[in-house]
Amino acid sequence: MLYKRLLAAVFAVVIGAAALAQTKTTVTSPNKNITLNFWLGDNGAPMYEVLYKNKSIMLPSGLGLELKETMTDKVLPSLTNNLTEVASMQISSNTTWKPVWGDVKEIRDNYTQLSVKLSQKTAEAIEFTIVFKVFDDGVGFRYEFAEQKNLKHFIVADEKTEFHLTGNHKAFWIPGDYDSNEFSPNVTSLSEVNGEDPKYAASIFAHQFFDKDAVQTPLMLKSADGLYINIHEAALVNYPAMNLHVDKASFNLTSKLVPDALGNKAYLQTPAKTPWRTIIVSDKATDILASHTILNLNEPSVIKDPSWIKPTKYVGVWWEMHVGKSTWDYAGSQNATNFDTKNLKASGKHGATTANVKRYIDFASKNGLDGVLVEGWNVGWEDWFGQYKENVFDFVTPYPDFDVKELHRYAASKKVKLIMHHETSGSATNYERQMDTAYRFMKANGYDAVKTGYVGHIIPRGEHHDGQWMVNHYVRVAQKTASYKIMLDAHEPVRPTGLSRTYPNWLACEAARGMEFNAWSEGNKPRHETIFPFTRFMGGPMDYTPGIFQLELNYWDKNKKETIHTTLAKQLALYVTICSPLQMAADLPEVYEKKMDAFQFIKDVALDWDDSKYLEAEPGEYITEARKAKGTNNWFVGAITNENARTATVDLSFLDAGKKYTATIYADADDADFEKNPAAYKISKQVVDSKMILSLKLARGGGCAISITPVK
Amino acid sequence: MLYKRLLAAVFAVVIGAAALAQTKTTVTSPNKNITLNFWLGDNGAPMYEVLYKNKSIMLPSGLGLELKETMTDKVLPSLTNNLTEVASMQISSNTTWKPVWGDVKEIRDNYTQLSVKLSQKTAEAIEFTIVFKVFDDGVGFRYEFAEQKNLKHFIVADEKTEFHLTGNHKAFWIPGDYDSNEFSPNVTSLSEVNGEDPKYAASIFAHQFFDKDAVQTPLMLKSADGLYINIHEAALVNYPAMNLHVDKASFNLTSKLVPDALGNKAYLQTPAKTPWRTIIVSDKATDILASHTILNLNEPSVIKDPSWIKPTKYVGVWWEMHVGKSTWDYAGSQNATNFDTKNLKASGKHGATTANVKRYIDFASKNGLDGVLVEGWNVGWEDWFGQYKENVFDFVTPYPDFDVKELHRYAASKKVKLIMHHETSGSATNYERQMDTAYRFMKANGYDAVKTGYVGHIIPRGEHHDGQWMVNHYVRVAQKTASYKIMLDAHEPVRPTGLSRTYPNWLACEAARGMEFNAWSEGNKPRHETIFPFTRFMGGPMDYTPGIFQLELNYWDKNKKETIHTTLAKQLALYVTICSPLQMAADLPEVYEKKMDAFQFIKDVALDWDDSKYLEAEPGEYITEARKAKGTNNWFVGAITNENARTATVDLSFLDAGKKYTATIYADADDADFEKNPAAYKISKQVVDSKMILSLKLARGGGCAISITPVK
Repeated sequence: MLYKRLLAAVFAVVIGAAALAQTKTTVTSPNKNITLNFWLGDNGAPMYEVLYKNKSIMLPSGLGLELKETMTDKVLPSLTNNLTEVASMQISSNTTWKPVWGDVKEIRDNYTQLSVKLSQKTAEAIEFTIVFKVFDDGVGFRYEFAEQKNLKHFIVADEKTEFHLTGNHKAFWIPGDYDSNEFSPNVTSLSEVNGEDPKYAASIFAHQFFDKDAVQTPLMLKSADGLYINIHEAALVNYPAMNLHVDKASFNLTSKLVPDALGNKAYLQTPAKTPWRTIIVSDKATDILASHTILNLNEPSVIKDPSWIKPTKYVGVWWEMHVGKSTWDYAGSQNATNFDTKNLKASGKHGATTANVKRYIDFASKNGLDGVLVEGWNVGWEDWFGQYKENVFDFVTPYPDFDVKELHRYAASKKVKLIMHHETSGSATNYERQMDTAYRFMKANGYDAVKTGYVGHIIPRGEHHDGQWMVNHYVRVAQKTASYKIMLDAHEPVRPTGLSRTYPNWLACEAARGMEFNAWSEGNKPRHETIFPFTRFMGGPMDYTPGIFQLELNYWDKNKKETIHTTLAKQLALYVTICSPLQMAADLPEVYEKKMDAFQFIKDVALDWDDSKYLEAEPGEYITEARKAKGTNNWFVGAITNENARTATVDLSFLDAGKKYTATIYADADDADFEKNPAAYKISKQVVDSKMILSLKLARGGGCAISITPVK
Repeated sequence: MLYKRLLAAVFAVVIGAAALAQTKTTVTSPNKNITLNFWLGDNGAPMYEVLYKNKSIMLPSGLGLELKETMTDKVLPSLTNNLTEVASMQISSNTTWKPVWGDVKEIRDNYTQLSVKLSQKTAEAIEFTIVFKVFDDGVGFRYEFAEQKNLKHFIVADEKTEFHLTGNHKAFWIPGDYDSNEFSPNVTSLSEVNGEDPKYAASIFAHQFFDKDAVQTPLMLKSADGLYINIHEAALVNYPAMNLHVDKASFNLTSKLVPDALGNKAYLQTPAKTPWRTIIVSDKATDILASHTILNLNEPSVIKDPSWIKPTKYVGVWWEMHVGKSTWDYAGSQNATNFDTKNLKASGKHGATTANVKRYIDFASKNGLDGVLVEGWNVGWEDWFGQYKENVFDFVTPYPDFDVKELHRYAASKKVKLIMHHETSGSATNYERQMDTAYRFMKANGYDAVKTGYVGHIIPRGEHHDGQWMVNHYVRVAQKTASYKIMLDAHEPVRPTGLSRTYPNWLACEAARGMEFNAWSEGNKPRHETIFPFTRFMGGPMDYTPGIFQLELNYWDKNKKETIHTTLAKQLALYVTICSPLQMAADLPEVYEKKMDAFQFIKDVALDWDDSKYLEAEPGEYITEARKAKGTNNWFVGAITNENARTATVDLSFLDAGKKYTATIYADADDADFEKNPAAYKISKQVVDSKMILSLKLARGGGCAISITPVK
């Protein structure tokens, strides 16, 4: 493999012996932009600081963990102080690797690494190593515990990692939580963070609030002097997710791990390592979007032959339930309590009927889409939600009006793949008991992709969506689906941390507030999608389900007041600004069929890329990106704005010099406006070349999508 | 099926309309010995009392539950008062049914039933029914919730069932606990119950103490006026086990259900029912032993063709580990922390080697035993215990010195069945993920019985051995093993409640302090086995593993001080006094081979019975029983005593009149004594008939076993 071959090129510099306490050990990034200092401070407390272009971005910040003995629950001496340095080593590495899919075809992994081995000064000392990797655009560090005499099994009672910021930065944040990340991103100063304030945290059913001053990661920050800083984690495996407590006086952020039912954070056994804590920094917002540091900190793919993993564009029986045209369940209105469990009677509103699914298959087939997702196909939806029921779904029993065999035959005849839906209602124990049966059923019936869901309280009861047990569950699902050659799209999981590198069959996650909130809540703000690439998407692709053309939902039901807070052109641009190998065309076939000229962009746009250009961006305001479709000379451009109209600038210098291209521009009409006239778009074509700069007018809440193909 | 045919003979008496509040509704047992009164007391509180032969045994005692809404966690109006009676109905039933195995070939199920439907007086009233079944030897009652408008999903926050005893009875008890029942039974007055006192509760690793005044069921009581009262439960499914809090002033016992990780007791959905609360009562201790009321309160067998379920007598690679001759693990001393996980090196003490297992197979084959259990066959034992590890065992990977295929071939050639061991170390989630794989592996390799184990903290963490989730787990294992035609022996599960009627493949449980405690703790007292039939065995058979012949364990290791606190003859008698279709001959082949005259009884004794005679008994003191082997005219007698020598009397009138039988008597030698000379026995034969009465001298800690076969 390429990765291994290049590793041989690594050159190592060993800095011998233990540094004196209080002496700072310095690591600089290959391009010298980033400096990280590590030292043992007063009382042997491990400390680090980070500078970007000689400017402090992370003030002296504490490190360390609090452990307990597993068998006795006894608190062990702290790993936050009274430590001594046993050894220290620096190495450099500069390699490249090729992702199975992604925004570029090759990723450079270039860093300087400092490993500091520390020991307690007490008798029966525990040893651990803090490993820092300093990249050109950021820092990753983690705690590692080798096999050792005085530590074998242990509980992480607390992690005490600090991120001591230099001031009251502008923050793009959602409230800290143990279960949900489906909050609207807030934009305030750090001192204004308040998860208790309803204006910052709309109610979500299954969530577990714990600290009004806490936020989730990825946390995007902008300092007063214009530095962009992103804090997150990479390779979250066998450990809970990290929230951050914000000290509003000092702007020191402290890790708050999601606990289990007993209040413990993680159960580990040596050799063990924590996820990487990541800090990405630049004076250009676009560098944050372009960063591959989180992917670089994940392990290489474990899938030797990924040829069966295929980026997928799909339609599905899904949005029609959200807008109220049909229901997931067969026998009642959604969440009916008045149904007869033994003797289901069709309500007539069921969405996942054989006939309706064929309509979607026909549409996908006619338009060259890869797949059709079907939700509500299996029995149980009459009584599935919110009641801590362990055994809701069985994943193999369809409703009587959903003919699995016939749809298998029909989809195959139309060369369309069906995508199965496995809603667990949060009952992971029930799902784990049935996974093998469910996946065998899928493969026997032609399905090779699954969308999982975890809506509701987690079972095992007392566990949380973002705790160690569920983190391991999501990984087990990725591993087991891989063993069946099934692609995975996880909804309501923990926020992603780059694990799609290791499990490239894990195409996408939800793990954020998706499109559906527009259908029945106060909706997503126009700035929503200009923030996500700086927050949620830092960890990996999202199944955000763009492509809504019918933006005013009273079309479906005259009582529905909701509208989507974007223009139609912006919906198209999202296929570029959201980088994901799994993209839905979320609206209904009958809607698209009325606007096939605009739908042409969704048909054309790629899912996988040889290159990406992050042209201009400001979190919460605008993003303009261009991407080159894998294995082609076709480019796609997306530009989006928040509630303000503006002009996006696209310098086409990324095109091959001297070559002519046809640009098809899907733009907001002159009178477009997300509130007053969202569906107004105009399509134009022009010949372009690398010397041109396009100015794109974006309406309020608007956007622009462009496909660029070489002139033949 | 016989059961259904006889049900048709049921006759029903409906007592119309609601009785007036405060008016007692009376139910009497078919033989009139037991009277139960139900009424609504002050403030509409449901109350019951029980009389035996016109003597009060249960003073007015409260009933009811506290519920919460599942979705909101909101406390609902109490079901302990402010109730009104909606309807009341009495019926009688008198049927018989045939157990797949058991102490008798046919069981009479004869009772009077009172169903009282109650409603809250509040708006949105919840309705529930309390069903009482009054048998000739006891009472069962439970709470039932029909489908109804105002209740669908609910949490049982607390059960408030009371058992208000008439005085400070003598109690045979173990401390209340959420996880373990492996305590020595204590014999004190109720007022002396104290689970905090080390003399009443020897330390057990994975247990969860919660209330010093609580005891577990089955709770055996004896009143000052000589009544024997047993309190337990029947058909424990989808609900936690019940402990009892003892009020030492009033002698009112209150149910304390085992909570889940969130402190909730049970998650139910209408239609729902609780387990039966049972009270068995008699003025003769032997009637308690003979009672089938708990079985009668369980559902009939769900296994349509039980022909594959075979009572099993077995030896096994097990006691040799307890006495220190060998180890479960391959690569270290037990619980080694110094092994290399990747590169296991044999310590030379591993018990489950192919050669050693063949030795047991040879012995079983030569002596007509059915099976050979092998513990320590699968990898993981080097680091399995007490560390809250989720993934310890995989149930399909043998140690390198255990040849699954060869042993399959060898055992089959010798017509012996291997019994597989699945220690879960309490990690039920790990076991549930692997059960199908494990059972397929078993069947592929000739195993049709499994011994499960749950030593350690339960995973899901925060759940308990005796909580609702684990109760459901044990039932899932019984169901799944049945689906593979596998017989089940569960160690460290919740205490049994008669579910072996419903799942007759569930041959036995441990769920109590078994023989192995004699090998490495202060041991089991001589009275131990005279108490268990009144406590632990009320719910079903125990895999107690009797038959230890080498009673002084310094034989195995000169440093071992432990001795078994019985005589050898008592070890034989246990095969009769412990009624179980699964019986181990627990000692080693080389031990038995030195005393094959005594081993002859173990070879001969039956496992399944046409009839049982409970001849004389006093809990904590002595038990004498006779059982007739199924389908034969052979009888087996067992008599055991506590630390006092005594004479057991066996009136042989149960033999066929006029027929001659040969009795082979395995008795304590004249100088036998569990402390001074435990292994001294004598074997004699005599011709007996139904007119004779045998007097059997039992040594201190001694016993006597007799096999009686017709003279040909």
